[in-house]
Amino acid sequence: MRTHFCGLVDESLIGQSVTLCGWADVARDLGGLCFIDLRDHEGIVQVVAEPTDEGNAEVMAAAAQVGYEDCLRITGTVRARHSVNDKIKTGRVEVVATKIEVLNKAEPLPFHAHENPGEDIRLQYRYLDLRTPAMQRKMRTRTKLVAALRRYLDERGFQDIETPILTKATPEGARDFLVPARMHPGEFYALPQSPQLFKQILMMAGFDRYYQIARCFRDEALRADRQLEFTQLDMEFAWVSERDVQDTVEDMIRVVFREVIGVELDAQFPRMTFEEAMRRYGSDKPDLRIAMEFTDIAELVKQCEFKVFTDWANHEDGRVIALRAPGAASLSRKQIDDYAAYAGKFGAKGLAWMKVEDTAKGREGISSPIAKFIDDETLAAILESTGAQSGDAIFFGAATYKTASDFMGALRLKLGKDLNLVEAGWRPLWVTDFPMFEWDEDEGRYVALHHPFTAPAVDSIDDLRANAKTAVSRGYDMVLNGNEIGGGSIRIHNSKMQSAVFDLLGIGAEEAEAKFGFLLDALKYGAPPHGGIAFGIDRIAALMAGTESIRDVIAFPKTTTAQCTMTGAPSPIPDAQLAEVHVAVRETPKA
Amino acid sequence: MRTHFCGLVDESLIGQSVTLCGWADVARDLGGLCFIDLRDHEGIVQVVAEPTDEGNAEVMAAAAQVGYEDCLRITGTVRARHSVNDKIKTGRVEVVATKIEVLNKAEPLPFHAHENPGEDIRLQYRYLDLRTPAMQRKMRTRTKLVAALRRYLDERGFQDIETPILTKATPEGARDFLVPARMHPGEFYALPQSPQLFKQILMMAGFDRYYQIARCFRDEALRADRQLEFTQLDMEFAWVSERDVQDTVEDMIRVVFREVIGVELDAQFPRMTFEEAMRRYGSDKPDLRIAMEFTDIAELVKQCEFKVFTDWANHEDGRVIALRAPGAASLSRKQIDDYAAYAGKFGAKGLAWMKVEDTAKGREGISSPIAKFIDDETLAAILESTGAQSGDAIFFGAATYKTASDFMGALRLKLGKDLNLVEAGWRPLWVTDFPMFEWDEDEGRYVALHHPFTAPAVDSIDDLRANAKTAVSRGYDMVLNGNEIGGGSIRIHNSKMQSAVFDLLGIGAEEAEAKFGFLLDALKYGAPPHGGIAFGIDRIAALMAGTESIRDVIAFPKTTTAQCTMTGAPSPIPDAQLAEVHVAVRETPKA
Repeated sequence: MRTHFCGLVDESLIGQSVTLCGWADVARDLGGLCFIDLRDHEGIVQVVAEPTDEGNAEVMAAAAQVGYEDCLRITGTVRARHSVNDKIKTGRVEVVATKIEVLNKAEPLPFHAHENPGEDIRLQYRYLDLRTPAMQRKMRTRTKLVAALRRYLDERGFQDIETPILTKATPEGARDFLVPARMHPGEFYALPQSPQLFKQILMMAGFDRYYQIARCFRDEALRADRQLEFTQLDMEFAWVSERDVQDTVEDMIRVVFREVIGVELDAQFPRMTFEEAMRRYGSDKPDLRIAMEFTDIAELVKQCEFKVFTDWANHEDGRVIALRAPGAASLSRKQIDDYAAYAGKFGAKGLAWMKVEDTAKGREGISSPIAKFIDDETLAAILESTGAQSGDAIFFGAATYKTASDFMGALRLKLGKDLNLVEAGWRPLWVTDFPMFEWDEDEGRYVALHHPFTAPAVDSIDDLRANAKTAVSRGYDMVLNGNEIGGGSIRIHNSKMQSAVFDLLGIGAEEAEAKFGFLLDALKYGAPPHGGIAFGIDRIAALMAGTESIRDVIAFPKTTTAQCTMTGAPSPIPDAQLAEVHVAVRETPKA
Repeated sequence: MRTHFCGLVDESLIGQSVTLCGWADVARDLGGLCFIDLRDHEGIVQVVAEPTDEGNAEVMAAAAQVGYEDCLRITGTVRARHSVNDKIKTGRVEVVATKIEVLNKAEPLPFHAHENPGEDIRLQYRYLDLRTPAMQRKMRTRTKLVAALRRYLDERGFQDIETPILTKATPEGARDFLVPARMHPGEFYALPQSPQLFKQILMMAGFDRYYQIARCFRDEALRADRQLEFTQLDMEFAWVSERDVQDTVEDMIRVVFREVIGVELDAQFPRMTFEEAMRRYGSDKPDLRIAMEFTDIAELVKQCEFKVFTDWANHEDGRVIALRAPGAASLSRKQIDDYAAYAGKFGAKGLAWMKVEDTAKGREGISSPIAKFIDDETLAAILESTGAQSGDAIFFGAATYKTASDFMGALRLKLGKDLNLVEAGWRPLWVTDFPMFEWDEDEGRYVALHHPFTAPAVDSIDDLRANAKTAVSRGYDMVLNGNEIGGGSIRIHNSKMQSAVFDLLGIGAEEAEAKFGFLLDALKYGAPPHGGIAFGIDRIAALMAGTESIRDVIAFPKTTTAQCTMTGAPSPIPDAQLAEVHVAVRETPKA
């Protein structure tokens, strides 16, 4: 139907006749001369309709009728342009139309892309939204990412193997989506939260290296960066140790960043233990683009007069953190109160602070509600240990180790962004040596920090039982600019160890057999050592495309209310159809 | 953990030390000498444990303990083998073990691959089944197929775009799987029967060429070659005609057959209209490996004495078919009765036949219950028109056009297989010019032969309405060896034409708006002409792997009772969990 793409018409075609298909991006009738910007997925080219010696009445009439987003087929001759537009690839040429066909006339648009429409209407008319060059570019980035990942893995002998979508409830901790089974009244399939157990079974099934760009499902409250269904690059390796997995995927990530967006990541990603990450940044996914780090000052303030500090400095599980915020002495009292409120969302009961107006003036140079409780020597020690300079502020967090780390970690990120302290660029790292378990106060039992199939760093079941609280797992996360983009582990490949871990997690023998019997069985027939990782494709694509929202790199995302406003999903279903699958809608008490 | 793969140890490594990981395929203790066949995904190598001058007690003891499917890590030295085994890649070498580590001891196996276990037990212990070289080979074929398809499409600018799994009920005619929506009491998502509407919307959204290896779902009774979830290569092209789509995908299929299994398909696939395929083969997916064709003899038998023939020969919608079966005169009466019963399953009320014992003897050379009703001249004309030779049989079908074609088409395939008349090789073809509609007697309305979005071959709505019964669509199927491996069409890209087709299909304006309103809307904003196709990946992989069952190329298939016997899906769900998603199990009347 066409000879060339609109966005690729260039000077090499001058003098030639071309036939183009595309949409009218803009049409301008300049009295006797019509300009149409014709757009396809490659870009935009200027088409001009002008009177000829014979009049050119048909073309002129057609051009005059063109409206936004009309679907057109235009034949014309390429010529050099008077007013060159160097912003676009086609900016040195224009196409003089000899024929204009309207393939499909567009009705008046519900919105115009230039008007910065809200996301609701963009999602309802997603086909118009996706037609914009900005969305085409973002979606293209995702396509390139996935293609580059596959190319990398295919070339290295990884086998792409599909695992079921209709499966048994998976135990990743989130709520499962359920699907009534027509042939088995009262029974349900579940959509997978991840292919975790299937990929482990594949290793036991003799596949050596597996990958899958896998759709996963979690029926959770939607946050800005979550969807009901999401996509992960799922990988598993047989006969490996941590470093085998990490070295391979680190190289893979380097290669795809180079190929897709031309970015050269570190030749060796830095490595940091969970303990170090929490200690320095209060996060297991530290954003290294922000240089600010915590200073632990419990030792300095154990004896001071400020009770909040001394209480937590002397508490067995307490932590007192100082965070120097460069240039933050200029913050207003209102701004500081806002930061205190922000930290409160992450568990802070209050937020102590000091503005360091002038280091040369000693105590006189400090503005702070808490300074009066702190003696000169301690004050000097705090300034010295944090490295505070004139014009800085210092924020303090004192609470349990976890709570203080959490809210000061959140504050660090917020201050970093607000104070323009986020360096440009890409800062990947590995976080390793996670605790095996976390104690869940509410449930009175251990929960798995990764998942129940993660191997502990000890080989002996007795060792693990004796030291469960401090046991370290063989899990690892890849972090990029403060996002956990990948997480994985070496798995348990021994049936007895797996049973012991279930037991420590409060999953009794009977429940373990009911939920994971097939895994425990499979581990008995010569399961090889294995491990793997999964990467969040939506997030990586969003990072590469330079957008905050993963919805910009998903063709048809759900809204935050879990709906597709374009198709109208979900929707009511006739009762007769529900009867076929043996379920009924429950009466819900009116709210 | 290893230096080489078991299956790749060869003469180039003689004298070197290697470390291998794998499973004990067989272990033989030959009195003071132990042989272990060590297997990984690449193949098998022979390991030998033998006494050394120092005794080698540790290795000998370990080797003596090895059992089937133990997971082992073995270090040893490669040496040339005395008794060469040319059947395997490693057959000229063996590895003399210096260290044997048992990484995971296998318990006694539930079955042994050599015992030809039933499919039930194979599926329950799928990890053991998949470990066998035969299954590894089949699964590898599928991986290669998918990788080759992606490579082909990525190189040509097709964009891999994911479409939702949680979506609105799709209208492909099969039953939908439903997923209760927790956030929307009483509402349900549906799993897609195909991404049909989404891929059309993508074309309207400005993507130029789309593909996706897409999971699709149909809640239908399971036949041998169907699964609840299946995989298709889904493709769509903007601004194209039939030939653009067909030429591209025909080349793609040729390339992947060459790359994956080294088969060179026809340089140009033959093309056949639906009418011709039904006329010659009684099937819209004719198996061209079988040369047998129908002969229409209505004109010859209009006047004969055999009432079944004359009735249908003179019937407006009747058909009388003769099918010559080479060499079938030797069939017994019992065998012929069985064929009649077989044809009966496809609608035959009876099956007339003639054995042609000797063409030289005229009527005397014919053995047939119906010959006495047929005069000499007609008899001779039948023999001549079918080209029957001495030793052949002729089968006759007389019924409505459709019924006669159906059962004679089925009989043709069965006779072809039974009589060894299926030629080796690969016979692809295109079937085109399908009827737009079929009249459904039961429902008293037209149904779409492809789907309701297929464009008619006429542009005018009036033309279509006036000639609905005979209207031809712009649909096309790719057929290979009697399998429809791909089906597609040019789609309707005009909102009014789409509404008219819905109307002809008995879908009223209100229902159309409720079900397809978003499509009708999208067609109004400059939808481009577009078309596409979808290929059945499971079937193509099975054909390439040389297996009858698609379950052999699916890692974790469901049984014919829609269950996964390994994980136990589907399964009952606690009522409290069902309450969260606002559904309850219906009481089912006891059968």
